[in-house]
Amino acid sequence: MPSTNQVPHLQTALKGPLLELEQHLLDNRTTIESWFRKQFKNTPAPFYASVDLRNAGYKLAPVDTNLFPAGFNNLHPDLRSLAVHAAQTAVTQDCPEADGVLIIPENHTRNMYYLENLCSLQHILEAAGYEVHIGSLIEDLNEPMKIDLPSGNCLTLKPLVRQADRIGVEGFFPCAVLLNNDLSGGRPEILEGVQQTLMPPLELGWADRYKTEHFAHYSDVTSIFAELIDIDPWLITPTSIACGPINFKERTGLEDLAKSVNQVMDETQKYYQTHEIDCKPFVIVKSDSGTYGMAIMSVNSPEDVLNLNRKQRNKMSSVKEGLQVEQMLVQEGVYTYETMEEAVAEPVAYMIGSQVIGGFYRVHTGKTATDNLNSPGMHFEPLSFEESCVLPDEQQNPDASPNRFYAYGVIARLALLAAAREIAEAKGQLPALAAI
Amino acid sequence: MPSTNQVPHLQTALKGPLLELEQHLLDNRTTIESWFRKQFKNTPAPFYASVDLRNAGYKLAPVDTNLFPAGFNNLHPDLRSLAVHAAQTAVTQDCPEADGVLIIPENHTRNMYYLENLCSLQHILEAAGYEVHIGSLIEDLNEPMKIDLPSGNCLTLKPLVRQADRIGVEGFFPCAVLLNNDLSGGRPEILEGVQQTLMPPLELGWADRYKTEHFAHYSDVTSIFAELIDIDPWLITPTSIACGPINFKERTGLEDLAKSVNQVMDETQKYYQTHEIDCKPFVIVKSDSGTYGMAIMSVNSPEDVLNLNRKQRNKMSSVKEGLQVEQMLVQEGVYTYETMEEAVAEPVAYMIGSQVIGGFYRVHTGKTATDNLNSPGMHFEPLSFEESCVLPDEQQNPDASPNRFYAYGVIARLALLAAAREIAEAKGQLPALAAI
Repeated sequence: MPSTNQVPHLQTALKGPLLELEQHLLDNRTTIESWFRKQFKNTPAPFYASVDLRNAGYKLAPVDTNLFPAGFNNLHPDLRSLAVHAAQTAVTQDCPEADGVLIIPENHTRNMYYLENLCSLQHILEAAGYEVHIGSLIEDLNEPMKIDLPSGNCLTLKPLVRQADRIGVEGFFPCAVLLNNDLSGGRPEILEGVQQTLMPPLELGWADRYKTEHFAHYSDVTSIFAELIDIDPWLITPTSIACGPINFKERTGLEDLAKSVNQVMDETQKYYQTHEIDCKPFVIVKSDSGTYGMAIMSVNSPEDVLNLNRKQRNKMSSVKEGLQVEQMLVQEGVYTYETMEEAVAEPVAYMIGSQVIGGFYRVHTGKTATDNLNSPGMHFEPLSFEESCVLPDEQQNPDASPNRFYAYGVIARLALLAAAREIAEAKGQLPALAAI
Repeated sequence: MPSTNQVPHLQTALKGPLLELEQHLLDNRTTIESWFRKQFKNTPAPFYASVDLRNAGYKLAPVDTNLFPAGFNNLHPDLRSLAVHAAQTAVTQDCPEADGVLIIPENHTRNMYYLENLCSLQHILEAAGYEVHIGSLIEDLNEPMKIDLPSGNCLTLKPLVRQADRIGVEGFFPCAVLLNNDLSGGRPEILEGVQQTLMPPLELGWADRYKTEHFAHYSDVTSIFAELIDIDPWLITPTSIACGPINFKERTGLEDLAKSVNQVMDETQKYYQTHEIDCKPFVIVKSDSGTYGMAIMSVNSPEDVLNLNRKQRNKMSSVKEGLQVEQMLVQEGVYTYETMEEAVAEPVAYMIGSQVIGGFYRVHTGKTATDNLNSPGMHFEPLSFEESCVLPDEQQNPDASPNRFYAYGVIARLALLAAAREIAEAKGQLPALAAI
């Protein structure tokens, strides 16, 4: 992992509005932190989350909120104690009596990046003072499987078993169960109706969750937040609409999709004019459920979706573990203007509970500012944030790294709050979002 | 501040038992963390504390627990985000609705070390997202006083005012009030009966608090803790008894004091024999209330206290801001065997809420292992802990710095728990200390 004091360069002809935004976030820090405290008191944050951000200079917005984050291995080791503290607080909040945590991971046994992430997560929870075992959903796993990792650590996956209404591994059925599996393949029967505390709840798996619902909550959150600190909510909110049902293989619904694309491009163009931004709007179309960037494309005009070739249509039909694509999220594309040695760098912020615990840049080579950076098979180099996102420095300019990281942390927590409200809604306990 | 990766060298002929102790703490980490969680759930930790430790190689024990800690400026800047997170949690615990914090400091306006501490504390709370002002008890302060600090920061002390049952500074009467004044001079009338949340409560000021009570609670705590992890509690507990009333100026009570010294020396000698420690016991005699190391002496025999000259007796009679010395704490002296380039190095651990947020060594030159290192006028060089106290590394030996710091953090939290129990007792809500 590159470890330097460098942070990506923000190169845009339109810095003004963003620096204004960053300065504005700094100036309103006390108001913002107080507001977040009250919001997360009303709607507790999920156990953890990572948020992919796009920094266009004139606009800073989330494009993906992952409630089953991987990538903990990419966080800077110096910031690990932050994660440990935050994990203590988050486990205590969700399950005060817990002495142990069972982690249920993805079934990837060959993806060393994922397994290093799992190992980091285990270490964080162990350092927080919990006994931790990993219970795997792999079907033919009959005994513990040890995996030696490139880092020199060793990971042990144990067969997940169920006893009455509890799940665990042999001799270990703790009251806290941490899902690090996004349930794209559906809700496994073994997890249904368990009496332990699942973090986050099953309802937040991709089998039940829709991106458009997340962004609808995000839009509610940012409209109140923007009022609080007096900014145009568009500066932090990607225009997002739902469209469907669509079947790419059978070419049904594509006309509707083209209309939606047109609508988002039109709206974006209007905002570009209002804010005097000399860019060409583009649109991201992705599956409304599922993850891993399989069914996703970047389009520059409504015609693009009408003229897809067979290969493109096949790609848009296949999502992870075979979820049917039916509804699409049509979202304003936000340019990525951060670069590291000419490679595009996309920030990802990590949270445990309501605390931002760090982040990293995905540094891509050979990609442009409009591409989706989380496409399958894409290689990226992680570049850890070397500083925390909680210590802005008012002596420095608003774009200095501690201040830019603070801005990331604010926008990421707005997405976190949207996720918290998804959880509250799934439980039928959604409180009003009052401006304070 | 020296900033190197060095940590003091632990030089003792008797490392065995300590390495055993450190290894034992590492081996029982999950049990220990779980126990602390339950204890601090039953008896909430004070807002903050610092604990002076002595590391004798064969024994690791606290000698002073400060509930109004200064020295936040001595903590390593890289660990500041830990303090920020912990402060968010601690303020939320004590005063969930707070948006602002009023700090009431000591009246020192010329001690730049103290003022730098105050500035660090203000920055930590501001970074945690609170509006912070400093309300000074200085009597003739009629308008805000700005003080430029050596660090380049500027501190503003404002006159503390009272309006009905609230205290504050002009236009700022927040519900959270942080005391950074140990009340050695008594409880100021302006603070009596206020309806805001005082952190920690007034009863914990030195006007009302006795060191012997703290160490009685500490002893209760360590007897249960030692049982939990199966060690001799003496390894982490200094023998401590109360003795008085004593008036050094009038030479009354000195015979009783000599007897107490004798008793502590005898008991210590027995433990030294049990543990095959080839050292000569010594005893620390200090005022049972008050702080700042004014009334304190190190003695090697009961005769020492009978043969004090006038100067020594005068010194023992004067404590900060004129508190009367009546009762003394007679405490087993714990040798300090950590050295940094031949200078004695004494660790101090800092906590906010129940979290250890860092620490530093007081590095003294020209002092021996038996001296009191917190004597008035003593100069020391702070050497920050560069690593947190929450991330032991089992791959390294038990005396490697992350592991030694973890041990410090455990012992410091035992003292913190004793302080939490003092607070609970002051409120009449002391729960049983159950082994779990």
